[in-house]
Amino acid sequence: MRAIELHELEALAIGAGILGTGGGNHPHLELLCARAAYAAGKRAQLLAPEELQDDMRIAVLAFMGAPLVTKERLPEPISACRAVRLMERHTERKFDAVMSVEIGGENAFLPLLVGMELDLPVVDADAMGRAFPEAQMASFAIRGLDVYPFALADIRDNEVLIAKAENALWTERLGRKAAIELGSIAGTCAAPRSGAEVKAHGILGSTSRAIRLGDIVLDARRRHEDAVAAILAAGDGALLLRGKVIDVSRRTTDGFVRGKVRIAGEGRTLDIDFQNEFSVARLDGEIIACVPDLITVLDAETTEAIGTEVIRYGQRVAVVALPADPIMTSPEGLHTVGPRAFGFDFDYRPFARRGHAGVPS
Amino acid sequence: MRAIELHELEALAIGAGILGTGGGNHPHLELLCARAAYAAGKRAQLLAPEELQDDMRIAVLAFMGAPLVTKERLPEPISACRAVRLMERHTERKFDAVMSVEIGGENAFLPLLVGMELDLPVVDADAMGRAFPEAQMASFAIRGLDVYPFALADIRDNEVLIAKAENALWTERLGRKAAIELGSIAGTCAAPRSGAEVKAHGILGSTSRAIRLGDIVLDARRRHEDAVAAILAAGDGALLLRGKVIDVSRRTTDGFVRGKVRIAGEGRTLDIDFQNEFSVARLDGEIIACVPDLITVLDAETTEAIGTEVIRYGQRVAVVALPADPIMTSPEGLHTVGPRAFGFDFDYRPFARRGHAGVPS
Repeated sequence: MRAIELHELEALAIGAGILGTGGGNHPHLELLCARAAYAAGKRAQLLAPEELQDDMRIAVLAFMGAPLVTKERLPEPISACRAVRLMERHTERKFDAVMSVEIGGENAFLPLLVGMELDLPVVDADAMGRAFPEAQMASFAIRGLDVYPFALADIRDNEVLIAKAENALWTERLGRKAAIELGSIAGTCAAPRSGAEVKAHGILGSTSRAIRLGDIVLDARRRHEDAVAAILAAGDGALLLRGKVIDVSRRTTDGFVRGKVRIAGEGRTLDIDFQNEFSVARLDGEIIACVPDLITVLDAETTEAIGTEVIRYGQRVAVVALPADPIMTSPEGLHTVGPRAFGFDFDYRPFARRGHAGVPS
Repeated sequence: MRAIELHELEALAIGAGILGTGGGNHPHLELLCARAAYAAGKRAQLLAPEELQDDMRIAVLAFMGAPLVTKERLPEPISACRAVRLMERHTERKFDAVMSVEIGGENAFLPLLVGMELDLPVVDADAMGRAFPEAQMASFAIRGLDVYPFALADIRDNEVLIAKAENALWTERLGRKAAIELGSIAGTCAAPRSGAEVKAHGILGSTSRAIRLGDIVLDARRRHEDAVAAILAAGDGALLLRGKVIDVSRRTTDGFVRGKVRIAGEGRTLDIDFQNEFSVARLDGEIIACVPDLITVLDAETTEAIGTEVIRYGQRVAVVALPADPIMTSPEGLHTVGPRAFGFDFDYRPFARRGHAGVPS
């Protein structure tokens, strides 16, 4: 176990943005919250997966709802803390640590904030290895673990528990409706996991990975260098295209932001579909990357990730693909998070690990 | 404690219809369910309020959702039984008896069905003395008792618990959304009540009252007499008008059925507004009865109540008013169930206890 250093917080925010693959929102306000806690003398403690005891009990946390709302109502760990306490009361067992359901976007910070509040360490792991829009898209659900009980709380005095659910989709349906009614944002604590379950079915080392990616960006920024090549090397990724955003169509439906973005560069055209996160990339009409692999649009100047809700005409970008965790590309994984789960009529194909050499500096 | 006799079941159904004041649905299918249980040798046990021990624990039951759905999916006590068991697990206390949140309509039968299933007696009481459309309109909530926890279950394997709620309106909002997601119908178990609380804040004797009203109708039917006068005498009510339904406007909005019905007779016109239940009656434009008093439209031939969802042009009817329980007409009661709570811009006025003598036979 080690304390996360103050200077690592910014790296975590940048890395979580990259792993957010366009969704999950940039954790800018969460970063400010964490810094405020650090200024007050607190420190988030990071627990390596190999330090987990099999019978430890881990709270899996997330904000559930519309990311946009967290821009109006400042993020706070209180609602998630109350969801944790509700889960402890209902199951009559205390938690030993916390972790995030997804390392992508603002949920990367929630376990740090809650952990500092409740004095619990943060497991260096998540259940998505990125951001996904729905609760059943977590590795624990994909591996068939029970997805209940599931606790939600808000900043008033409301607490809802899905005590039992027919399956993971029902947890998502019932939880989503409760979160919407609570103001389109709720702090949630998913089914408690044992240390053994996290080690066997979690995506391990995600917090460190996000910090590492962010460090690469900060490092390159200090040297006035382009960080894309280093990100690709560190993440075993590929550059899909550098270019300019020339078209964005975006609509908010069924609680998600959906749409397409078109990027032109190097004489070619890259079209990317999104549902909260970027899902499919087509180069001159040919599919070159798709979910569950990570498609991330980076600002050409800052190398920070650009979200699907804010991407706009004229931005200069570099689009990269990073490989999904093997749990996500397993048959059960693809059933839940492959292209067909997002409504596309084709099977998953891994992106080609090419182009490292060809990255223009 | 006494067994409810087989022949009383039909009387209960008719009486619950009358006290349903147009909503809550006629409990025809629940009557069939209860008869099936009786045919299998079971008997519902009725516990008089004075038999309640102060420290007894009572489960307050209801189907929550759209009454229409219970006409497509046959009523069953299983979902409510699972809500009861969830509440027992969460609060770590067993129940000693069950009761209905509302005596009006099909919810009058739910505690009988659940009681026979779980071998628990049915308290001769409810929390509305009629039917009301929303959960916060119960006497326990009006008297300021905690309205959580609140448990819901469906016929699949889904169980939801409102562990805590800011206030009664939040229980209604969160419970309603969960019930809708569960298929627009859920078995619910409201906050556990002690025997002392039921005696102090419940509406006592409602099951007996419903059976008595139903008996009057059955009795008159056997003698080929008109039962309206006897109902008015037994219920301290007033005849508002006899006539013919000449217009109905009905729309389903926000999960409720709302509208107006116009009845013409004796040279006069009676307009009645409804939101699930009949709420305000105007005779030639003048308000003569309003919530929380009971406005019931009786079929002129059978003297059975006609629901707001099925009332139609051409029906011959007698419209009666029956007085609300004093809890409902207290200042706190009127705040929650008076005309303003239903969106009308006037204060409650009791209906005139007149017309007994003038009832045409």
